[in-house]
Formats: sequence, structure tokens, C-alpha cells
Amino acid sequence: MKTKFKPYYAVIFTSTQKENVDGYSKMADRMETLAKQQAGYLGIDSARSDVGITISYWKSLDAIKDWKQQSEHLQAQLKGRQDWYSWYNVRICKVEREYELGNR
Amino acid sequence: MKTKFKPYYAVIFTSTQKENVDGYSKMADRMETLAKQQAGYLGIDSARSDVGITISYWKSLDAIKDWKQQSEHLQAQLKGRQDWYSWYNVRICKVEREYELGNR
Repeated sequence: MKTKFKPYYAVIFTSTQKENVDGYSKMADRMETLAKQQAGYLGIDSARSDVGITISYWKSLDAIKDWKQQSEHLQAQLKGRQDWYSWYNVRICKVEREYELGNR
Repeated sequence: MKTKFKPYYAVIFTSTQKENVDGYSKMADRMETLAKQQAGYLGIDSARSDVGITISYWKSLDAIKDWKQQSEHLQAQLKGRQDWYSWYNVRICKVEREYELGNR
């Protein structure tokens, strides 16, 4: 029996960084740890080449809103805007279909 | 006046590669060139660390379907499954909201 696919949400965060990103890596690790503790968190994918891409997956839009308002995360967002990112874009997406090859 | 946001679509492709990926880079460049010529193509973001992430953006689900069926792209998908990827995942998403800081 095939399980019916249940839509969920993805936050696509793309960014470019400034030259000096002191403290960024430690903060990114901390945010990943905190995100995993949030209700409705499903997973995360992250990679950086010329552009950085971080995608987090969530059960609902409310879960995304709660994480955006989490107090330590609010501090990190402020620091990101002020010190680390020269540009970023955030896209809130509904995942409507999914398919996979092999096992990760 | 603020322009009303118009939803569009994103294809999130995450993957891990095999050790030998001869020919992959050339094919990836070729696919990016071809995608840009497709009707409904909006843009692409790509980065690779432990995992590779490529996100392409499209005006509609039909535009995504057309690109998936494009003949040269079908050959590339086959080659990817057979030779290059140890695992991949494809998510079809509707972008419902978006915000940005600064200029890319």
C-alpha cells in the first residue's frame, strides 16, 4: 500500500555573505540545534558555493511562524542582517509533490 | 505602490553523488543553458557541500512538466540515475510568500 502524500512546507533561504563573517558558523550550528527542538520541524538541507542555500522543512505555516519568532532566533536574524549577509532572500513554499531515488 | 505578489513554483532537487562523476559538470552546464530557454523559466540557484542543492523557479506546473519531458533533459535524467547520483530527491513546491534584504 502506498502512503498518501501529505503536503508540508519548506523555507528556502538563499544568501550571499560579507567578507568578514566572524561568529557566523557557531551561530548557524546553534540555530540548527534550536530548530530541531521546535514543534513541527521536519528537517534541513544546507549547502554553500557562490550562493548559500538553506532549506528547512516544516509541518505547517504556524510552525514556521513560531520558529521565526523564537527569541534566540530573532537575535540571530538581527545579527545576520547587520553583520553577515550582503543579500538574502526567503521563500515560504508549500511542498505539493515529492519523489526520490535510492536511500540517502 | 506595492506590486501584489504572484505565486510561482520551485523545484527543489537535493542529491548526493557517486565517487566518479565524469561528464557531470559539462552536462549540468548544458542543462542550465537549456532550462533558460524553456517557456516559464524564472531562475535557478545551485550550491554543493555534503549535499548538492539545485532549485529552479517556474511560472507554472505546466512549465515544470514541459521541462521534465524535454528530450535532451530526459537523456540527462537517465544518465544521472544510472551514473552520477547515489541518491536524489525532487520536491515540487508552490512559492506562496517571499521577502528579501538588499540587492543580489
